[in-house]
Amino acid sequence: MIMEFMDELRFLKEQLKFNEKVDVPPGASEVVIAGMGGSGIAGKIFQELFTEFKVHLVDNYAVPKFVSKSTLFIAISFSGNTEETISAASQAARAGAHMVTISSGGALSEMGDQNIKIPRNDIQPRSATGYMLIPLLKGFDVISKSEINESYGLLDQLDKNNEECKIHAKNISKKSLIPVIYGSPPLCSIAYRWKTQFNENAKVIAYSNSFPELNHNDTMAIAQTYRKDEFYFLVFGSDSGKIKKRINVTEKITESNFNVIKPKGHGQIPRMFYMLHYGDYVSYHLGMLRKVNPTDISLIEKLKKEIK
Amino acid sequence: MIMEFMDELRFLKEQLKFNEKVDVPPGASEVVIAGMGGSGIAGKIFQELFTEFKVHLVDNYAVPKFVSKSTLFIAISFSGNTEETISAASQAARAGAHMVTISSGGALSEMGDQNIKIPRNDIQPRSATGYMLIPLLKGFDVISKSEINESYGLLDQLDKNNEECKIHAKNISKKSLIPVIYGSPPLCSIAYRWKTQFNENAKVIAYSNSFPELNHNDTMAIAQTYRKDEFYFLVFGSDSGKIKKRINVTEKITESNFNVIKPKGHGQIPRMFYMLHYGDYVSYHLGMLRKVNPTDISLIEKLKKEIK
Repeated sequence: MIMEFMDELRFLKEQLKFNEKVDVPPGASEVVIAGMGGSGIAGKIFQELFTEFKVHLVDNYAVPKFVSKSTLFIAISFSGNTEETISAASQAARAGAHMVTISSGGALSEMGDQNIKIPRNDIQPRSATGYMLIPLLKGFDVISKSEINESYGLLDQLDKNNEECKIHAKNISKKSLIPVIYGSPPLCSIAYRWKTQFNENAKVIAYSNSFPELNHNDTMAIAQTYRKDEFYFLVFGSDSGKIKKRINVTEKITESNFNVIKPKGHGQIPRMFYMLHYGDYVSYHLGMLRKVNPTDISLIEKLKKEIK
Repeated sequence: MIMEFMDELRFLKEQLKFNEKVDVPPGASEVVIAGMGGSGIAGKIFQELFTEFKVHLVDNYAVPKFVSKSTLFIAISFSGNTEETISAASQAARAGAHMVTISSGGALSEMGDQNIKIPRNDIQPRSATGYMLIPLLKGFDVISKSEINESYGLLDQLDKNNEECKIHAKNISKKSLIPVIYGSPPLCSIAYRWKTQFNENAKVIAYSNSFPELNHNDTMAIAQTYRKDEFYFLVFGSDSGKIKKRINVTEKITESNFNVIKPKGHGQIPRMFYMLHYGDYVSYHLGMLRKVNPTDISLIEKLKKEIK
């Protein structure tokens, strides 16, 4: 039985209690994290939050040539059967890397020196971000109990009241607009996550970019592009004075209308979870308004079969 | 006097002859490359081509916390005055990193243990990719004489005949379409480069993604999105059997029309230069057809002043 998608979203906060963690071997000189799509986002978030260690990402069949015995290689696939991730993990194993897998089963779940098993619970991979991210955050001591508690509270707030998210979805839906999501450090990975959630939950094209990089390219375009009134700009608020100024000046000189969403929470991690979940709800509501099924990813399944 | 933009494009091949190179200190354990926009693309390309070494990118004010005395830090800014890059370089210097700068002057040009000076030649930063990339490729022995020669020949071919690029530009311009660029390894950075060139040269919104990652998100969207006939898909051909299959199956099951562009050249590097330059011309022609000035980036300059 497939869980209702709304129940999947409400289930994210429970995943914060997941108690498995990556065992970091003492000699590791760098971390390489492989994962695709909904299973890849955990690595992207972790890389942005945790910069004490060298963290590299793989979203492809092959691993970088520097992977060696001193590499901690973490392969993440919800199903445990993602073609690209298994290929990358096999290559890393041949190079002698220390292997940790995070999956609910499948071929991957037996490939590691450590295999972290996550509950399947009949949810979509992209609804299991907590299960895939928590073992990284706990393994490297990046998250505290109080941050988990604050995150839980913020997610619960959104689960109970996401009317604001629905308003954005209505604005987008009314004129069939194309969502453009602008993040900034340390939430660039979350801006990308929103793009992918719009793609999968609402089945609309969307794209993301981040300040300050977008001031070096998108800026000219959003000022002078054709079809300008077809885009809906969702911009993450920032505490950085420099980024705030960039947001304000960019909106003004490009004569655009930015919908700025202010992150709630104190620490980086609670704010990250809040913004992640906010995007879940905007894309979910847009899917509902478009009368598409958020859980339907039949074409991705079809593609996987056809390329075999 | 400002060079005509067409002359700027034709000037790329000459930059292959640039003879400066990064001196790699013997003890370096990783490379961190900082750069924004048109000066950031060199690092992105290098990271994708050269994976023997750990290469990290910075497109922000701050550097990762792991930066230390054993880091080779390469700061790239055409003007030498980019706010973000100078901030990142200062942080890296405080952490004791070995510093190499690549710039045509400005404050950055005096901050390095090695300062590589590139000719200004009155071109846009994004037209100086050769100057910024060659010192990396030569410093790490990634490029051979024969690859330089082949690259020169391919760029020269495009300079003499870019009618095919113009046809794509006409197709896009006729219906005011939104370019969507799909790359795949090792040309994901080039797909992003195309996006930024569309933004700056043609002043249109565009976005890029890459196989196989896009099969985990964009796929559902391009099949079922609204406004589907408003997008123009530019897809890089691949020699990988797996990627080829993904391209074909994705086009079929999403009922999209992919314009596949086959890279010319033998080695990875000549193919990369060919594809990079192909995108230069598509975006240039689109700018001409839209009657915008490709060299005009006045808004970006205005923004830089206003945020000071």
